[in-house]
Amino acid sequence: MTTTDHRKLPRRRGDELTAAIFAATLAELAEVGYAGLTMERVAERARTGKASLYRRWSSRVELVLAAVYSAWPEPDEAVDTGTLRGDLLAMLRHHAEVLAGPAGEALRGLLGDVLADEDRMVRLRRFSRARGRRTMAEVIRRAVERGEVPAEVPARRLEVGQAMLRQQFLFGGTPIPDEVIVEIVDDVLVPLFTK
Amino acid sequence: MTTTDHRKLPRRRGDELTAAIFAATLAELAEVGYAGLTMERVAERARTGKASLYRRWSSRVELVLAAVYSAWPEPDEAVDTGTLRGDLLAMLRHHAEVLAGPAGEALRGLLGDVLADEDRMVRLRRFSRARGRRTMAEVIRRAVERGEVPAEVPARRLEVGQAMLRQQFLFGGTPIPDEVIVEIVDDVLVPLFTK
Repeated sequence: MTTTDHRKLPRRRGDELTAAIFAATLAELAEVGYAGLTMERVAERARTGKASLYRRWSSRVELVLAAVYSAWPEPDEAVDTGTLRGDLLAMLRHHAEVLAGPAGEALRGLLGDVLADEDRMVRLRRFSRARGRRTMAEVIRRAVERGEVPAEVPARRLEVGQAMLRQQFLFGGTPIPDEVIVEIVDDVLVPLFTK
Repeated sequence: MTTTDHRKLPRRRGDELTAAIFAATLAELAEVGYAGLTMERVAERARTGKASLYRRWSSRVELVLAAVYSAWPEPDEAVDTGTLRGDLLAMLRHHAEVLAGPAGEALRGLLGDVLADEDRMVRLRRFSRARGRRTMAEVIRRAVERGEVPAEVPARRLEVGQAMLRQQFLFGGTPIPDEVIVEIVDDVLVPLFTK
């Protein structure tokens, strides 16, 4: 492996370096998959040192998780189409698209890696759970404002879309067919929330 | 490893031998986990030869899947409590209990094993999908008969309970708390089906 002496490169600030490391991680995932990804390769690709990586993320699992979630839209970026149905379709289609790319490859690899390890599973959980639920909460909040959905929505209901998309992703593979997404929205989510 | 000369034991017929092999597989899962389970150990424990196993199941994945699903209740065994809510609670509680035992350990191990392998994933899918959906279909069929649920139920809706239980199992661990099951039934499934 040829190594770049990154100390000779212009010094990058925190955010810029983090962005370079995330981009390198996602590129590695796309190129060699989760199984082939190493801290060395990512450091090399981001033209930084392994120490810079380990200072921020204690393991490959943490780094990959952080990179994957950096590619995921923030809850407040959920597209506002003006209707509950439109918002749900946009949200699930976007997630399905992310799952069909390097982030999906990463999640599949991560899950395979951590399923047998309770401690690491707890960390994966913390990352993965809250995010999907917050995005759904934002979509529903807007639907309540528009009067499409009654004000009281039980928290458990916010997990349904994510659970169905994940089941499809894990047990049905990728890409997730668009008709599946349309069915999840029209046969499950819209009736459930507009009840 | 001490080996029993199984040829000297009284000959067992197909079903009896299969039952002994499944019992041995589940016992091994409980004792050494999925990672420690081998065809040799199962054959030894069931007092048969490895050839008998390979004649029926081409790999550890197939054997473990078959053993796990032998422990799962058949769709027509879904408890009839007389109400939709009661049937859903009974069904999900039973599944949660199975997931907390050797079958859950097996599923976690299997999933970790096959996630990266598209061919094996397809086989896991075939086994796992149809079963849960058929049980739900039976519960809903009875609710329609009782007039609790309108006659037309979209197929996609039958997956919701299983998807939520699985999400809980994979990302929340076991045992699944009973209040989670009650919320899935009261905040999601009953409103969704009785709409």
